[in-house]
Amino acid sequence: MELTMYDKLLQLPLFQGMSKFDFTDILEKVKIHFNKYEPGSCLVRQDTPCNQLIFVLDGEVQIESNDKTHKYTLWENFKSPNVIEPYSLFGMRPYFTASYTAVTEVNTLNIDKSYILNELCRYEVFNLNYMNMLSNRSQVIYNKLWNAHIGKTRDKIINFLLLRCMTPYGAKKLSIRMEDLARLIDDTRINVSNVLNDLQNRGLIQLGRRTFSIPELREVVQLLDKKD
Amino acid sequence: MELTMYDKLLQLPLFQGMSKFDFTDILEKVKIHFNKYEPGSCLVRQDTPCNQLIFVLDGEVQIESNDKTHKYTLWENFKSPNVIEPYSLFGMRPYFTASYTAVTEVNTLNIDKSYILNELCRYEVFNLNYMNMLSNRSQVIYNKLWNAHIGKTRDKIINFLLLRCMTPYGAKKLSIRMEDLARLIDDTRINVSNVLNDLQNRGLIQLGRRTFSIPELREVVQLLDKKD
Repeated sequence: MELTMYDKLLQLPLFQGMSKFDFTDILEKVKIHFNKYEPGSCLVRQDTPCNQLIFVLDGEVQIESNDKTHKYTLWENFKSPNVIEPYSLFGMRPYFTASYTAVTEVNTLNIDKSYILNELCRYEVFNLNYMNMLSNRSQVIYNKLWNAHIGKTRDKIINFLLLRCMTPYGAKKLSIRMEDLARLIDDTRINVSNVLNDLQNRGLIQLGRRTFSIPELREVVQLLDKKD
Repeated sequence: MELTMYDKLLQLPLFQGMSKFDFTDILEKVKIHFNKYEPGSCLVRQDTPCNQLIFVLDGEVQIESNDKTHKYTLWENFKSPNVIEPYSLFGMRPYFTASYTAVTEVNTLNIDKSYILNELCRYEVFNLNYMNMLSNRSQVIYNKLWNAHIGKTRDKIINFLLLRCMTPYGAKKLSIRMEDLARLIDDTRINVSNVLNDLQNRGLIQLGRRTFSIPELREVVQLLDKKD
């Protein structure tokens, strides 16, 4: 493993701040798998058990969250370096909450759960990074919960997205029937249709069949609470 | 420290599953503070830094969460054994999200953050308990987020409570002006007033001045999605 690879690994969430010395030590004890995914191939399927940490070293990944009960699917993307659902490895629901597919060529580093607890968590920096990451996630979501206020139709649609998206920025896509979205936000189909068409006219979303795409969620979020 | 005290400590969240041997070892290395609180005295104030784990060994504690921006306050209680906000010790918002007051006489065991990371997290059982607890919290809240659907006025009020309460059962109290609650759930004051009066007539809540009390949230939650 050349120096640049080390540097890349030390940029990964959870490994940040570790010394190269510790990292060499880890590589001797921990079994690490490197995987390569072609564009379009699936890294992880929603609702399958999460029993490893998957670090995305290179490339872009699409997240697909499907709510079967309420009949909609949400897509967003993320780029390397990143780690897939570190909050799904422990706890009472150790299953992936979404599916992850390679958009570009993707390289990953995978470590089994047993090594995380028995070896990696013995390193104070790694353990602190993990504790911080888990705590931060619940703090961010808790904050969302308390601020999940309801407004007019447009605000309700924006809040629906903000509550469910990993990040409040970047491209998103939602596949849902207008009547289902209207039902979920307790509004009428005609109001939902008017708001979505207005957003399309402003160039902020693209409407498709049972689908709409948002090139940049941040620009839509800026409309929150505006009168017009 | 007598045997019964050990047994009590080993029942605490985070210590469950540890051996008495490990626990004796911990007690030699870790500075532990025991505190006693009289009924009505405050253990922790909302928005103050969280730099210790506070284990509630005996007694009942009231949680008070105040949302200054949206002008309401929510109360609920919990009983020992418990630990106060283990998810606020790490992460980017290491502040208590609520105030905690003794309802009965309360005994606590406090451990500073430095000992948690440097000593306690070295014990695999403790660390696993902590990881599970943090992961579980984000899983529970994430699940709430995705299921935070909007319905008619009564459903919206119940959802408002469910999103914000620690537990979906037990006694709760909310101090809020009817017009503020109506605004937060995007409904009219008269609809909110009608629903709250109907719930009072059913014996499920007690209305006070700018306040309502719920003896058992579970019974109110059972009304969700019912037509009448």
